[in-house]
Amino acid sequence: MKRIALCALVLAAGARADEGMWTFDNFPSRKVAAKYHFSPDAAWLEEARLASARITGSTGCSASFVSPDGLVMTNHHCAHSCIEQLSTKEKDFVAQGFYAPRTEDEVKCPEIEVDQLAQISDVTAQVQGATKGLKPGKEFNDKRKGAMAGIEKECSGGSDKVRCDVVELYHGGQYSLYKYKRFLDVRLAFAPEVAVAFFGGDPDNFNFPRYDFDVSFIRVWEDGKPAKTEHYFKFSPNGAREGDVTFVSGNPGATERELTMAQLQYQRDVNLPEGLLHLARIRGALTVFTETSPERYRIGEANLRYIENSYKVYKGRQEALVTPSLWAGLAGKERKLRARVNARPSARKKYGSAWDDVARAVAQFQPRHTEYRQIEQGWGFAQWRGHNSQLFAVARSLLRGTEELQKPNEQRLREYTDAQLPQLKQRMFSKAPIYEDLERFKLAYALTGLREELGPDHPVVQKVLGKKSPQELAAELVKSKLYDVKVREQLWQGGRDAVQASDDPMIQLARLVDPEARALRKWHDEEIETLQTSGAERIAAARFEIEGKSSYPDATFSPRLSYGAVKGWEENGRHVDPFTRFAGIFDRATGRDPFQLPESWILANQNHQI
Amino acid sequence: MKRIALCALVLAAGARADEGMWTFDNFPSRKVAAKYHFSPDAAWLEEARLASARITGSTGCSASFVSPDGLVMTNHHCAHSCIEQLSTKEKDFVAQGFYAPRTEDEVKCPEIEVDQLAQISDVTAQVQGATKGLKPGKEFNDKRKGAMAGIEKECSGGSDKVRCDVVELYHGGQYSLYKYKRFLDVRLAFAPEVAVAFFGGDPDNFNFPRYDFDVSFIRVWEDGKPAKTEHYFKFSPNGAREGDVTFVSGNPGATERELTMAQLQYQRDVNLPEGLLHLARIRGALTVFTETSPERYRIGEANLRYIENSYKVYKGRQEALVTPSLWAGLAGKERKLRARVNARPSARKKYGSAWDDVARAVAQFQPRHTEYRQIEQGWGFAQWRGHNSQLFAVARSLLRGTEELQKPNEQRLREYTDAQLPQLKQRMFSKAPIYEDLERFKLAYALTGLREELGPDHPVVQKVLGKKSPQELAAELVKSKLYDVKVREQLWQGGRDAVQASDDPMIQLARLVDPEARALRKWHDEEIETLQTSGAERIAAARFEIEGKSSYPDATFSPRLSYGAVKGWEENGRHVDPFTRFAGIFDRATGRDPFQLPESWILANQNHQI
Repeated sequence: MKRIALCALVLAAGARADEGMWTFDNFPSRKVAAKYHFSPDAAWLEEARLASARITGSTGCSASFVSPDGLVMTNHHCAHSCIEQLSTKEKDFVAQGFYAPRTEDEVKCPEIEVDQLAQISDVTAQVQGATKGLKPGKEFNDKRKGAMAGIEKECSGGSDKVRCDVVELYHGGQYSLYKYKRFLDVRLAFAPEVAVAFFGGDPDNFNFPRYDFDVSFIRVWEDGKPAKTEHYFKFSPNGAREGDVTFVSGNPGATERELTMAQLQYQRDVNLPEGLLHLARIRGALTVFTETSPERYRIGEANLRYIENSYKVYKGRQEALVTPSLWAGLAGKERKLRARVNARPSARKKYGSAWDDVARAVAQFQPRHTEYRQIEQGWGFAQWRGHNSQLFAVARSLLRGTEELQKPNEQRLREYTDAQLPQLKQRMFSKAPIYEDLERFKLAYALTGLREELGPDHPVVQKVLGKKSPQELAAELVKSKLYDVKVREQLWQGGRDAVQASDDPMIQLARLVDPEARALRKWHDEEIETLQTSGAERIAAARFEIEGKSSYPDATFSPRLSYGAVKGWEENGRHVDPFTRFAGIFDRATGRDPFQLPESWILANQNHQI
Repeated sequence: MKRIALCALVLAAGARADEGMWTFDNFPSRKVAAKYHFSPDAAWLEEARLASARITGSTGCSASFVSPDGLVMTNHHCAHSCIEQLSTKEKDFVAQGFYAPRTEDEVKCPEIEVDQLAQISDVTAQVQGATKGLKPGKEFNDKRKGAMAGIEKECSGGSDKVRCDVVELYHGGQYSLYKYKRFLDVRLAFAPEVAVAFFGGDPDNFNFPRYDFDVSFIRVWEDGKPAKTEHYFKFSPNGAREGDVTFVSGNPGATERELTMAQLQYQRDVNLPEGLLHLARIRGALTVFTETSPERYRIGEANLRYIENSYKVYKGRQEALVTPSLWAGLAGKERKLRARVNARPSARKKYGSAWDDVARAVAQFQPRHTEYRQIEQGWGFAQWRGHNSQLFAVARSLLRGTEELQKPNEQRLREYTDAQLPQLKQRMFSKAPIYEDLERFKLAYALTGLREELGPDHPVVQKVLGKKSPQELAAELVKSKLYDVKVREQLWQGGRDAVQASDDPMIQLARLVDPEARALRKWHDEEIETLQTSGAERIAAARFEIEGKSSYPDATFSPRLSYGAVKGWEENGRHVDPFTRFAGIFDRATGRDPFQLPESWILANQNHQI
């Protein structure tokens, strides 16, 4: 590992990566060697892959194994939900930090899963083969999803210590089976005070240089003991220097470089603006909510951070897509590829109509996308990724889970296949507290949005609200008994009949809207998604045929590796250094949130410990 | 007035206007006659113009004179701010409604001005003549604004009973002088309970059919007596019937049909999304604010309605601009006009570069538009049209007013010319209450936005906030003494020296940011606006030369007249009737806000009075 600093955390912002988020099985080692005189070989890549970790559960994140006994380093915000879930009104680990002096003092995170990528194999032939000759539609969808569920189940062999995901790369151009070692017993070891972990807060978020100690340590346990992790990243006492080649291993969420112009236009004009407006509004609402009492701050703050972070992510995307030069560049690339396809008769026949198919899928989806989002994706019931109403999430999982489990694995909705069950159960039976006050707030907000987006006369709105106001209905819904994990377990064990018979108000709501929600899902999966997938598969195939596999696939929250040299840059005539030094945090401290250091840091500075 | 129903209020939504919002001096009477066999002649048009009213002040609205003694009918929301300003914690006229049984019981609205358009004259030659041969820049700006201020002052003769506005039509293609009779003593006569005035609330807003009683009556007074208004609209006891030709007289705010594609692109990609995100966020925040106590609801509700209304307006615009067919149509029109200009050598020479000039103005503005908006337009200090921080508005008016009045009329900023002073003073010395709690809320929000948009390291942010948090600074600012009208009057009378010497925290803030704000304003007015105006004037001239003056100018919140037949339409296979009947409101009532009728309506219904 000579000359290599693998420290995704501290240097990520300063290191300007060369182009690419590569899969571990298609890493451009030769290109790296040509430029940096270091060629990552198979052994090196395997070591890097096994020392990297993926965090799933209530947040998706990247992390590193950093000791032989299961210690994992990640960002503070990646463990934030766990830290908050372990906190109480009396003991607030978010504000005060957490430290377990001995491993036995570590506390179990209710909803964190850690995955270690053990193996990648190509299953393109099986997945694509299942739909060979089929037109987009029901059968296409059934066969494709069935094939994926079958492959995953066979791979995991039913063990919940193994996780197998069929990963759709190049939007269906390639299907890879990612086999992970799965850790479901994950415990919190150390987290600093949020005031220093998120120092600079939202104003400094996404800026560089940035001064904060955005770190936490968690540990994976196995059979009641810290797990043995022979592959891990060692700390470099000297750190990296300017010019060093650096590799960043992680799980980027989702990119959209391979989307067609029709899909990008939908993103630019419909999806991103709508998502941003939702985030802006809930951000405003939640900001005032958290200001109304210290307890509301405690229970709502992690959500607010998540929203602020997402807002910046989507805003950046939107700003990129409305940049005329970027848009013209993408359009030009698509035009060029299509021209090259059309110039070859055989390619034209196979791929020529693929872009139009995708455009047709987008056009057909758009008129009902608000209904799909509100009812099936559940925005109308506060199902917003990362800032969900927990009660509705649990209720829908119980309802659909007990229904889906009646069916063979291959015929279930993707999120209820055997491969997904361990994570589903972890969330469904999570001991993390659910706060009535926050639930009521979110549900009232979401139900107001449901009425606003679909209109007061929409049948689902009429059915859900009747003569009630959103606030009134929310107040009734939060009387649910689903706060209690035992109640959830009983319903799950009681199976479909128990859930169907339940008079819990939240279960009733989930049942009430499920016919329309499932109808929308069926329409989406069979009519829209298959048309889009079949188009995307052919576009990817055309790209491989004409351009080769020299480009990396869009990010899919699966392990990737990128590289680049540690390097500063010029901005507005000023040199930006690639390193941030701890001392800078003291210059920036104003004593006022979010530039307020915790007492421990102020003391350490006074005592010259830093 | 046979066969003519002039009732902008009740029928506006149902009547589908033919294309056009025409000025009274260029109304297409012949076109109307050809289609509807009724030709509005000069006398008819004059009567309609003089019976129409424009409301300015804290809200811009349309209204009608409806009696010979000054009674004016308008929407409820047009008098909402007045109704709210007259309310107290003890007596809430918004919730309970208002009725003055005798004229002497009517109460003065602190910030409403009513204008009656007496005369229109063409001053294009004077305004365009002032900049003849000048390149865009400082002198262009000085001469143009100077000419406008001079014309307005001469027209009004210094009387505050006359209001004269130079109106820029066709974005500078034509300048018209609008001379109004101005009423500054406006009193509230009747307003129903908001629950019925805004029945259906935000969910039903912008929908038709809609059931509410969105009306209020105000009266213009003169010399301490109800004003004599010989021109007014009479109620038709029979109402309108399907097929009737209808005229709607009003003051549409602003349209953008004549903007160039470069300007529209700026609207679509930058300005509207930013405005919408701001509205969405403040909407979320203010919603929760108003929910935290009945008093907060009372002081914040009118603002929230205003925001929700604006949000729908801008959302509609944004959705229109991202509609590919609409965009392509606009682009095609511009391309065609440019081609026709370029085909004529003389036109090409005069107008050929105009579109590029406008595009250049947009491109130069864009990198600093956030600074301009935050600092000069004052978003960073809660200067958002219609939901301002009153304290900062007053402070800036005092500061700039006392400075600008040192200069000759022609050299002042437009909003401080003699013609603007009556309205400026009405607002500056308004007796409407300013609520400390709401001010603090808005200022903390705005200062957070200032830091977010410009970044914590921007010099103005550093200067304004120093080490303080936005919340802390807001709490200091609201200790201002400017709540007291007497304090404001003393400062005004003390003039520049008094304002410069004041240690009022809000005046200090206004002073602190004014150098940067004025520098941005100067840059905008001299570099950007002149380039844009000179381009727009030439584009308008090209249009007149090639297409004639057969089209109407973009709306500019000045009196316009449109026409059309009363007619229903088909929607989703259903016929929508053009009339809404009172009975419908009872079917729609759920007993829950915003579908909750006031007691008076429920009783009247039970007693069969409706």
